[in-house]
Amino acid sequence: MSVGLADLSGARVLVTGGLGFVGSNLAMAASAQGARVTVLDALLPAYGGNRANLDGAKTPVDAVVGDVRDAALVRRLMDGVDVVFDCAAQVSHSLSVTQPFLDVDINCRGALTVLEAAREAAPKAHLVYASTRGVIGRTVYSPIDELHPTEPTDMNGIDKLAAEKYYRLYGELHGLWTSSLRISNTYGPRGQMRHDDYGVVNWFLRRAMRREPITIHGEGRQLRDYNHVDDVVRAFFLAATVPEARGQAFLLGSGAGTSLIAMIETILSIVGWPHEVTKIPRPHERQAIEIGNYVVTTEKARRLLGWAPAVGVQEGLQRTYDWYREGGRLEKYL
Amino acid sequence: MSVGLADLSGARVLVTGGLGFVGSNLAMAASAQGARVTVLDALLPAYGGNRANLDGAKTPVDAVVGDVRDAALVRRLMDGVDVVFDCAAQVSHSLSVTQPFLDVDINCRGALTVLEAAREAAPKAHLVYASTRGVIGRTVYSPIDELHPTEPTDMNGIDKLAAEKYYRLYGELHGLWTSSLRISNTYGPRGQMRHDDYGVVNWFLRRAMRREPITIHGEGRQLRDYNHVDDVVRAFFLAATVPEARGQAFLLGSGAGTSLIAMIETILSIVGWPHEVTKIPRPHERQAIEIGNYVVTTEKARRLLGWAPAVGVQEGLQRTYDWYREGGRLEKYL
Repeated sequence: MSVGLADLSGARVLVTGGLGFVGSNLAMAASAQGARVTVLDALLPAYGGNRANLDGAKTPVDAVVGDVRDAALVRRLMDGVDVVFDCAAQVSHSLSVTQPFLDVDINCRGALTVLEAAREAAPKAHLVYASTRGVIGRTVYSPIDELHPTEPTDMNGIDKLAAEKYYRLYGELHGLWTSSLRISNTYGPRGQMRHDDYGVVNWFLRRAMRREPITIHGEGRQLRDYNHVDDVVRAFFLAATVPEARGQAFLLGSGAGTSLIAMIETILSIVGWPHEVTKIPRPHERQAIEIGNYVVTTEKARRLLGWAPAVGVQEGLQRTYDWYREGGRLEKYL
Repeated sequence: MSVGLADLSGARVLVTGGLGFVGSNLAMAASAQGARVTVLDALLPAYGGNRANLDGAKTPVDAVVGDVRDAALVRRLMDGVDVVFDCAAQVSHSLSVTQPFLDVDINCRGALTVLEAAREAAPKAHLVYASTRGVIGRTVYSPIDELHPTEPTDMNGIDKLAAEKYYRLYGELHGLWTSSLRISNTYGPRGQMRHDDYGVVNWFLRRAMRREPITIHGEGRQLRDYNHVDDVVRAFFLAATVPEARGQAFLLGSGAGTSLIAMIETILSIVGWPHEVTKIPRPHERQAIEIGNYVVTTEKARRLLGWAPAVGVQEGLQRTYDWYREGGRLEKYL
């Protein structure tokens, strides 16, 4: 098992969505290794793009504000690139239902724009696509593996699934080096804390840190599979470098289910706030896209990438709390 | 098993892609029953849209030339509609690879435009989506059923798969009545005969009728699963009317594999032309999207729709030949 980061020092790295949560953590980690990093981010107001996410970069990161659907721009940024982490996305499940055309446009056409640019300008680059657990849909058997059916319960999952398949296809048809990581519920530094539309662990940490009352839909007993973002970053670095990653899609997760209420109780204990969580009925539109328990096996990632998550929930939440508290960082994420 | 067509008399029927091969056969059959039929077709030059396809309609069919991506137009045509057959598509496998953005635009955004229009203007309509065997990709086990993995080998298959999933999703989220039919290799009256990019059975019939030399890639031994378009039309009518169809996707086919060379030999025998087929190596770009043998079981369609194909290859090819020969019709399809 790999415990450190695969080596990207000296590589030219392009991170789309690189001012967002996962993207900026990738950019910062690559920069810390001495990679020459460019991030592309549209800073769309609905999402988590934040210039503060690159504060303190060891080597300068070139931040370009622009859209992943801008073919000429993406093509220009792709010149000479060795590694692409493609994290630009419409990431909201609920927006994907209310604005389905936007979801197709960003998630399908956006991913294709990156692939076409790579095919033309960086055919030797290694590309890792940030896919999502949302491609799975409702749990048919548990733990979920990479052979599990893929029947998404929202537009977002369908379009991300299509994009994941574009990545595989461009490997087959055009010889690109591609792989996909199906990211599970991820929390940690640099996640947005302005709303609870996604990234709910960070959201509840914010509520606890600010002593804002905490309300959840339902009992919070459904199991999710949480990763600290540092483990996710390590998986991306491996997926970009380990030969066995090529052409594959991997589920990320911890291999253990944790309930949302347990996450919140851990947060409250770390923050030191004895607070009674309010439970209200789940609204209809959230019910319709609900998936049941979600727990994965990470056996494939273990076997082919040599990856295993290293940060447990208690430690991961403590580190996240410490990070947002340090120097009043939380203020920059509200 | 149903031997006649399910009854659409008196229904208002909208057929997208309704001047094309499958769409026009659906429009003509509905019109013959006394349905009030509107077809929408963009008549894009690369595809099989043909005004001659509506020649001889029993009751007048309203033909609108326009694009399925035109939301205002589709919305207007959707008013008061009872049944939608959504056949508008980018159907070329090779074009989907050379013009991937076009494929996303027509197949993803186009299908979504139909669904959004139905949600707003015809929420009670029954919608049947013309999906494709291309969503399957390479055969993992045979015969293929609806649980078979879906790993398309071209953009077309990925985007049609996404659209099929949009159809299911709009049923779940918005209560629409939707189903999808994964059409196999279909031949018969009203198929284009101008090129061999798709619809190759019709193409080879044209070559034989005109005594044009016949060339195939490889040995022509790979099995495909052929349907006469009349059987496909019957499946659409059932998918729009049988309650068990709702929310489902069905594979169409004959349940038996036939090699391309056998199809061509049958054509030559029907046309009465003793001709030596020339076999040349398969070009690289076709090799890459090749899928192996493709044979389905139609057990699910049999069980839920009461559908079974009724037209065998010999009879189907004879009927197709007779149709194109009658009154010099072939000329209109070149």
